[in-house]
Amino acid sequence: MKCYAMLGIGKTGWIDKPEPECGPLDAIVRPLAVSPCTSDIHTVWEGAIGERSDMVLGHEAVGEVCRVGSLVRDFKPGDRVLVPAITPDWGSVEAQAGYSMHSGGMLSGWKFSNFKDGVFAEYFHVNDADANLALLPDGVEIADAVMLSDMVPTGLHGAELADVRYGESVLVIGIGPVGLMSVAGSALRGAGQIIAVGSRPVCVEAAKKYGATDIVNYRDGGIVEQVNGLTSGRGVDKVIIAGGDNDTFIDAVKLCRPGGIIGNVNYLGNGEFIRIPRAEWGCGMGHKTIAGGLMPGGRLRMERLSKLLKYHRLDTSLLLTHRFTGFEHIEEALLLMKDKPRDLIKPVVMI
Amino acid sequence: MKCYAMLGIGKTGWIDKPEPECGPLDAIVRPLAVSPCTSDIHTVWEGAIGERSDMVLGHEAVGEVCRVGSLVRDFKPGDRVLVPAITPDWGSVEAQAGYSMHSGGMLSGWKFSNFKDGVFAEYFHVNDADANLALLPDGVEIADAVMLSDMVPTGLHGAELADVRYGESVLVIGIGPVGLMSVAGSALRGAGQIIAVGSRPVCVEAAKKYGATDIVNYRDGGIVEQVNGLTSGRGVDKVIIAGGDNDTFIDAVKLCRPGGIIGNVNYLGNGEFIRIPRAEWGCGMGHKTIAGGLMPGGRLRMERLSKLLKYHRLDTSLLLTHRFTGFEHIEEALLLMKDKPRDLIKPVVMI
Amino acid sequence: MKCYAMLGIGKTGWIDKPEPECGPLDAIVRPLAVSPCTSDIHTVWEGAIGERSDMVLGHEAVGEVCRVGSLVRDFKPGDRVLVPAITPDWGSVEAQAGYSMHSGGMLSGWKFSNFKDGVFAEYFHVNDADANLALLPDGVEIADAVMLSDMVPTGLHGAELADVRYGESVLVIGIGPVGLMSVAGSALRGAGQIIAVGSRPVCVEAAKKYGATDIVNYRDGGIVEQVNGLTSGRGVDKVIIAGGDNDTFIDAVKLCRPGGIIGNVNYLGNGEFIRIPRAEWGCGMGHKTIAGGLMPGGRLRMERLSKLLKYHRLDTSLLLTHRFTGFEHIEEALLLMKDKPRDLIKPVVMI
Amino acid sequence: MKCYAMLGIGKTGWIDKPEPECGPLDAIVRPLAVSPCTSDIHTVWEGAIGERSDMVLGHEAVGEVCRVGSLVRDFKPGDRVLVPAITPDWGSVEAQAGYSMHSGGMLSGWKFSNFKDGVFAEYFHVNDADANLALLPDGVEIADAVMLSDMVPTGLHGAELADVRYGESVLVIGIGPVGLMSVAGSALRGAGQIIAVGSRPVCVEAAKKYGATDIVNYRDGGIVEQVNGLTSGRGVDKVIIAGGDNDTFIDAVKLCRPGGIIGNVNYLGNGEFIRIPRAEWGCGMGHKTIAGGLMPGGRLRMERLSKLLKYHRLDTSLLLTHRFTGFEHIEEALLLMKDKPRDLIKPVVMI
Repeated sequence: MKCYAMLGIGKTGWIDKPEPECGPLDAIVRPLAVSPCTSDIHTVWEGAIGERSDMVLGHEAVGEVCRVGSLVRDFKPGDRVLVPAITPDWGSVEAQAGYSMHSGGMLSGWKFSNFKDGVFAEYFHVNDADANLALLPDGVEIADAVMLSDMVPTGLHGAELADVRYGESVLVIGIGPVGLMSVAGSALRGAGQIIAVGSRPVCVEAAKKYGATDIVNYRDGGIVEQVNGLTSGRGVDKVIIAGGDNDTFIDAVKLCRPGGIIGNVNYLGNGEFIRIPRAEWGCGMGHKTIAGGLMPGGRLRMERLSKLLKYHRLDTSLLLTHRFTGFEHIEEALLLMKDKPRDLIKPVVMI
Repeated sequence: MKCYAMLGIGKTGWIDKPEPECGPLDAIVRPLAVSPCTSDIHTVWEGAIGERSDMVLGHEAVGEVCRVGSLVRDFKPGDRVLVPAITPDWGSVEAQAGYSMHSGGMLSGWKFSNFKDGVFAEYFHVNDADANLALLPDGVEIADAVMLSDMVPTGLHGAELADVRYGESVLVIGIGPVGLMSVAGSALRGAGQIIAVGSRPVCVEAAKKYGATDIVNYRDGGIVEQVNGLTSGRGVDKVIIAGGDNDTFIDAVKLCRPGGIIGNVNYLGNGEFIRIPRAEWGCGMGHKTIAGGLMPGGRLRMERLSKLLKYHRLDTSLLLTHRFTGFEHIEEALLLMKDKPRDLIKPVVMI
Repeated sequence: MKCYAMLGIGKTGWIDKPEPECGPLDAIVRPLAVSPCTSDIHTVWEGAIGERSDMVLGHEAVGEVCRVGSLVRDFKPGDRVLVPAITPDWGSVEAQAGYSMHSGGMLSGWKFSNFKDGVFAEYFHVNDADANLALLPDGVEIADAVMLSDMVPTGLHGAELADVRYGESVLVIGIGPVGLMSVAGSALRGAGQIIAVGSRPVCVEAAKKYGATDIVNYRDGGIVEQVNGLTSGRGVDKVIIAGGDNDTFIDAVKLCRPGGIIGNVNYLGNGEFIRIPRAEWGCGMGHKTIAGGLMPGGRLRMERLSKLLKYHRLDTSLLLTHRFTGFEHIEEALLLMKDKPRDLIKPVVMI
Repeated sequence: MKCYAMLGIGKTGWIDKPEPECGPLDAIVRPLAVSPCTSDIHTVWEGAIGERSDMVLGHEAVGEVCRVGSLVRDFKPGDRVLVPAITPDWGSVEAQAGYSMHSGGMLSGWKFSNFKDGVFAEYFHVNDADANLALLPDGVEIADAVMLSDMVPTGLHGAELADVRYGESVLVIGIGPVGLMSVAGSALRGAGQIIAVGSRPVCVEAAKKYGATDIVNYRDGGIVEQVNGLTSGRGVDKVIIAGGDNDTFIDAVKLCRPGGIIGNVNYLGNGEFIRIPRAEWGCGMGHKTIAGGLMPGGRLRMERLSKLLKYHRLDTSLLLTHRFTGFEHIEEALLLMKDKPRDLIKPVVMI
């Protein structure tokens, strides 16, 4: 079958691979729509997860079930399905402990385009289909639903990690597609003031629509000073980090009030250490909790988040600035993600 | 001073009382706007809290500070303030345990028109002013803000008790003003499907605007059957009880999935027992948690919830179907609450 | 193979059955030690779960793996294993929601001697072996470890449901083997005062050893009066119900402080309703949460609880008042559980 | 009155000061027993909280009430009281948010020997007496009870921050008196394996008595290697940091499993940054939560923790390696804490 793959660090291309095998618990799915992710860019051009050769890229897709294993009960060929980027082993002790995304080892719930071939192929393999797929609900657009694979669950996980509550002030650092979903996710948990940090006009515009009450452009001065200006120097109740780099935590700790939480959903690909400013962290005693985690995946998560689209609580179409039709446009969409033109939030490829 | 009071069970009227005294931690406030509550009706005409004589009614108000005690630091005469219905003793062990509304005894954080004179007077007394008042934020209408005293915090507490999460299905039983705020509160915590149970068209209309996705009219058949019809027989993740009677819990337990929570914010004024259906409660083992609690009050709560109005996350003006201007209209507004005409959700009296 | 089975309501006996089949994810285990449970008694003599014919009884066992399915990776024949009474389907949406014991439907994680044959047989079947078995740790006695199947996880779950915290006062109603484990579980979560309600001297003695600070004998007067006497009329922070009947909840609600939790782990087999006293429940607003749930099972639970034995935090041998050796003594042990002689807490049969 | 004070950084001595004034909510207490704390050492000899002159030292005491303000209701002269090191302003918004120790600003619930005179004086002042004092329970030794001021609540807070649960493995780094209470606090929350890191024999001995199952001496090699050796390379579920320095977090993150928590109760007095190892922190996505916080103080906390002593769940007398009688021995006890002889855990001075 035809696939778009990472050939090695820094190199991508179209290749042919045999169709994936279907184990007794698995499904083989063909993509109806896919979207490239910044992680794909990091994987290929920054070598973020190490060397890979001829590994199919992509982990965001909506698809149609083509084949299911003998032990699969709830899905059948022809079903239109949501596919989470994270497909855990639900029987693992990590999943039993509530951390399915780390089943089999830290981050190992992330399989597509990491440990196994991804979704930029004519067919892709889904482990434990009954536990990891979900039906596309009626009335939800396929293109919108692709955002449920990664952007929505990751962005919303930021608001979950930060445990955003009614009326709290939230600082969201980074307003790419994930950060925008953290803004929306904060509003969807009843935040009061939401300060979003970003600079690109297309993202700023979307952030406001998703519920940001204030925008801080880091090109206009230090984030700490600007946020203090917006909060009478009191900082914020919660911080969500969805962009920036390791040093973003320094600002986050400075701006987080005692008793607050910093929730990170930004993949930190470089550097040896994240640094926490000692004094502003209350000399270790300030109750400024620092949490960071990979999105929860699996079936229930997909079912629940799809309801946000079905019932119009969340409109992911605002993210989809670039739309393509045809499998062959996957490369173009990926390179767009690499080049990040000013008007891009997220591309989608309908197949 | 002039006040509107409960003279005894079943009797209300205008009376004169001396102005309240201001202790060192207290404030004396004059109302800028007030609203009668169904509790006032229960108090007077059902004797829900027992006999009272010449007790000033009312516990929903926005006011202006007139006087403060010598130990009050953060408020001064002239400040426009939000006044919560619940004004706890924050130093109590109950408050230290996280349950300030029960400071000094179960439900004893509720003082206005319960243990002491309420807000339907030229002046009223607020205990521990620094801890229980909050400034009215700029840009928030006084009338809208009166709903922050009780309707908003009580309704939203239903969604807090039920711990509503992204994409969950929620059943809200009762869509008077509190129930409507439970609907809004569920949407504000990211619920998916929200099924609201009610019958009056004005409330049904408001419920839809606040985020209800389905309406169940109990006049059209059993709630259990109708909700099962809307959920493929699976019931809902969470139930919020904001109306009905003691037997409402029977339906709630039947419709709540294992692992779900039933959050009650309806004051149950009659009957000896609430009954829990044994088999549907999983023979005691179904993990269908039954929680019920008085709204949290105090300053921080008011500050946070006022942000929902300030940042347009919540529009309480939809509740205010009847508006009066003039202190003397308090009686009319109260009787309206008693008579509940079909077009009423909530009256407000501007003073 | 030889098995001890429920022949029908009110009848038990030795029967022959074919050995169970082993699916690809399953294991076939032979028991090394088993223990009958009060549930077995309810099942047979009270028809608590309805009619069953020739269903093998028993759900408490330590065993040796005899055969494993082709997809099982972590266990092999000869392994000595802990077997939880509850063996969930971990991929189910219920398990993904954190309630594995209700996988496939309320209480349906309970399979042994409920939906399928139990452990009182030469061989028994374990679904999803990798996710539901755990290795018996070195240094833990087999007889003691049988208590990990049900008594320990159920009793401790009472303390989990009640969310017992440092220094809190806890009332444990019922001190059969499960209640005793709730006493121990409360002490193991740092409770302060632990008041245990029971009457049989052998249980009272054990309760004290497990950490009870006060004993209330319901034969000496009302529980409410006695507990109030022990708590200056203030009641307790938390209540665990591990015995009694539906009306036990009335006392529990009366004795639980606002902000407290009542955690039930008693299987309620009869009656249509559990009754909650309205006034003492704060008219629905007292924040006296009522929770009840089946024990969590599965591998991680077994691994963790076995550490309590391994590291001598918990000594289950105090429960084992009657010890038998030989498969043929299963009937005798079961009947002992039915007859409950005064000196019985729990029998165990070594095989 | 006579007091033992910090005269300036690096200097201490006996001074005379006027007796403290008693505001309407306050109490004046004379110490019955006190204990110096490592914080006192940091304050004086490392200048950890900045310059202070003639500030009375000490924040660990049991005392007798001498005078109470006009608004104090629950305490009277002659009462023997537990005095927490942290005495919050309970009406503050921080306390209302659940973080009373940060009332009035980060760490500002800590007043004794920080913002105001401490307890090494003939009399000391307690703010908000009703909310911050607790009666010494009958049957609890005064010397043992002094450990309730700081050592017990701080050490146990480590186990609370780490949310230790039944059967989990816990690594406690540092076994001075606080770390020993973290070991005991872990056992009191039902931990399984508890690995304690320390070297002084007197502390190692106590750690074992408090529940440590394994001891790691950092003089014998790297902590990471040793702990991996004890856990088959899997690390631990939870880490409590109660000693070491900023770089202790590096080991903690390496040894903490995904889904785990690192709870810090060590005051970090030096250095600009705490460093978090990026890769082992899961590139920001490993769900290894980093929490750190000052102990909760106040009345309820003291009441609850005193029950652990009253009911013999915790024996603090093991900490008291050096006992003095007489006010004049305060200096000697303090210098002992500074010099840390090998046989010292904690001194106490009976007055």
